[in-house]
Amino acid sequence: MVLKRNRKKTKAVFIGPVQIGAGAPVVVQSMTSTDTRDVKATISQIRRLVRAGCELVRVAVQDGEAAAAIGAIKQSITVPLIADIHFNYRLALESIRQGADAIRINPGNIPAKHLGEVIRAARDAGIAVRIGVNSGSLDKTALKKFGAPTADALVESALRSIELFESLGFTSIKLSLKSSDVTAMIEAYRSISRKTDYPLHLGVTEAGSLVQAAIKSSIGIGVLLNEGIGDTIRVSVTGDPVQEMQVAYGILRALGIREVGPDIISCPTCGRCEIDLAVLARKVERALAGRKEHLKVALMGCVVNGPGEAAEADIGIAGGHGSGILFKKGKAVKRVGEAQFVQCLLEEINAMTSGREENLE
Amino acid sequence: MVLKRNRKKTKAVFIGPVQIGAGAPVVVQSMTSTDTRDVKATISQIRRLVRAGCELVRVAVQDGEAAAAIGAIKQSITVPLIADIHFNYRLALESIRQGADAIRINPGNIPAKHLGEVIRAARDAGIAVRIGVNSGSLDKTALKKFGAPTADALVESALRSIELFESLGFTSIKLSLKSSDVTAMIEAYRSISRKTDYPLHLGVTEAGSLVQAAIKSSIGIGVLLNEGIGDTIRVSVTGDPVQEMQVAYGILRALGIREVGPDIISCPTCGRCEIDLAVLARKVERALAGRKEHLKVALMGCVVNGPGEAAEADIGIAGGHGSGILFKKGKAVKRVGEAQFVQCLLEEINAMTSGREENLE
Repeated sequence: MVLKRNRKKTKAVFIGPVQIGAGAPVVVQSMTSTDTRDVKATISQIRRLVRAGCELVRVAVQDGEAAAAIGAIKQSITVPLIADIHFNYRLALESIRQGADAIRINPGNIPAKHLGEVIRAARDAGIAVRIGVNSGSLDKTALKKFGAPTADALVESALRSIELFESLGFTSIKLSLKSSDVTAMIEAYRSISRKTDYPLHLGVTEAGSLVQAAIKSSIGIGVLLNEGIGDTIRVSVTGDPVQEMQVAYGILRALGIREVGPDIISCPTCGRCEIDLAVLARKVERALAGRKEHLKVALMGCVVNGPGEAAEADIGIAGGHGSGILFKKGKAVKRVGEAQFVQCLLEEINAMTSGREENLE
Repeated sequence: MVLKRNRKKTKAVFIGPVQIGAGAPVVVQSMTSTDTRDVKATISQIRRLVRAGCELVRVAVQDGEAAAAIGAIKQSITVPLIADIHFNYRLALESIRQGADAIRINPGNIPAKHLGEVIRAARDAGIAVRIGVNSGSLDKTALKKFGAPTADALVESALRSIELFESLGFTSIKLSLKSSDVTAMIEAYRSISRKTDYPLHLGVTEAGSLVQAAIKSSIGIGVLLNEGIGDTIRVSVTGDPVQEMQVAYGILRALGIREVGPDIISCPTCGRCEIDLAVLARKVERALAGRKEHLKVALMGCVVNGPGEAAEADIGIAGGHGSGILFKKGKAVKRVGEAQFVQCLLEEINAMTSGREENLE
């Protein structure tokens, strides 16, 4: 069941065939951490990202060689590709020529006088542009006016860029207003959401390694999505970007926005727990990683409370001394030896999900 | 700088000397995963929790032997101790006799007819009680009325318990309305916050292992704290409870509610990155783990963008080929060899924080 909530009505923008905004499902995206000039490594990482659920992928275009690599990368991937440009507008022009499905530009480091040429090239190619405002590289006018990269400064910078794009008749725009400060990020997106209808790309920037990134992104992205704001999300993790998928889909599942992949609930264990639940949880998480089917799997530490406490789960194990109870929807099904917990659970899950259509919404 | 925000004004409740509610700082708590009857192991885990920042600790009281162990545990710890009781009200009475600083009871599994005796004992001992409603073990009347453990069902169960406590003149109450469903949990706490002024203990129950627990807890607890709701928090992690402190303080820092411990910001790395930032971030995180001093540490993947993008950081490293720039508040200080990154950063941080008073608010 996907929760209905009042989502802010935004305009639709397409990146390849993927719709962003106007009621489309919230799209999950990521960015490669490879050197884009290394075509083979970049393709390989993109494929791993796609298997993990990535629906749009961005690559850094740091120089002409990286821009020139986009054509070759595009030939070997199916997911739409976004070229990330800083400083040099010529890299944007070359990325568009190479077939990028969208470009991201940072108005803080590409002078307005060069943007006209980029906008016309994007329009001629029929692709979208993300205006990616960033607290760490805000344009000088906004920074000077507000003295610091506050939420208002991010919003003003975005609005000024929109004005320029619109003056050239270009409206295939999505916006991001990222900050490493979670509260500034929340405030900036709330404000821009009241002021424009362009679809929003949500993210907390420089969020750190996995656990810290999960915390900051879950709060920043979670608070906004819960208010109906946001059309596509990117979780930034320092490390393997495949980890970003785990966090992104975890956020969407927790809010009932997209039910993709298993939701594993497991008790925090206490003095009543008679099995090594942490080890069991890790094993089950690993065994189910990357599965798209949605079901609620409960791993409970005691036979007495377990099945009842997890009655909402589709399936679960409640562990006792050396053996446990397999239960479905709160009802005990059979007794299972502790060594068979993972295998038994997987067999039952496979039987439950076989024939189910994979539904990414 | 601690952000001022409109916090819901709640009543004050004391657990030992620790104030919950009425404007006190949001208190971080945890629960042991040891067998409470194993006094030595439980004391050792409590000490680890306290070193990591735990301000209130709860232990499971699964039987008479566990209740009897509370006195001995109390003698060896300084942090206030809460006894967690299910099913058997006599365990609550024994825990109070043993000197517990508060008890947690679950109205879903302790019959109202036995609660009077527990409430009188708590009143005579001058301690507080947490009414801990839980979606997985809701009382039968509420469950029957609503058909499922919905937010409304959790709220009704809590309100009925409050009525019973108040009818006996007992008001040293805090409340929790936990669910493994993040949206139900948010809705339940919002609703109860409108209906009573008792302080609220926030938590998402059965949240899973570290990363999933970080996601669910950050959204559930984060959304509520950001609305000014919540007086004490517990992050539930399947695994070593010390991990709960990392997530709890991460949430409080991200929202600017309590600035305890270093905030490490690091870029997600991209094709422009010339150092192994993920390894550096992990090393720095480990080296700074458990530190109470608040400062913003930036780890950036490129020398060109790094210092500027992280100008808000107190200190940082921007890495290039084989060496990097140490910077403070966006200004380059000196060049450092890659092998010296961690040591150099630590020495500078120690110099910056020496003499600073440890301030847990």
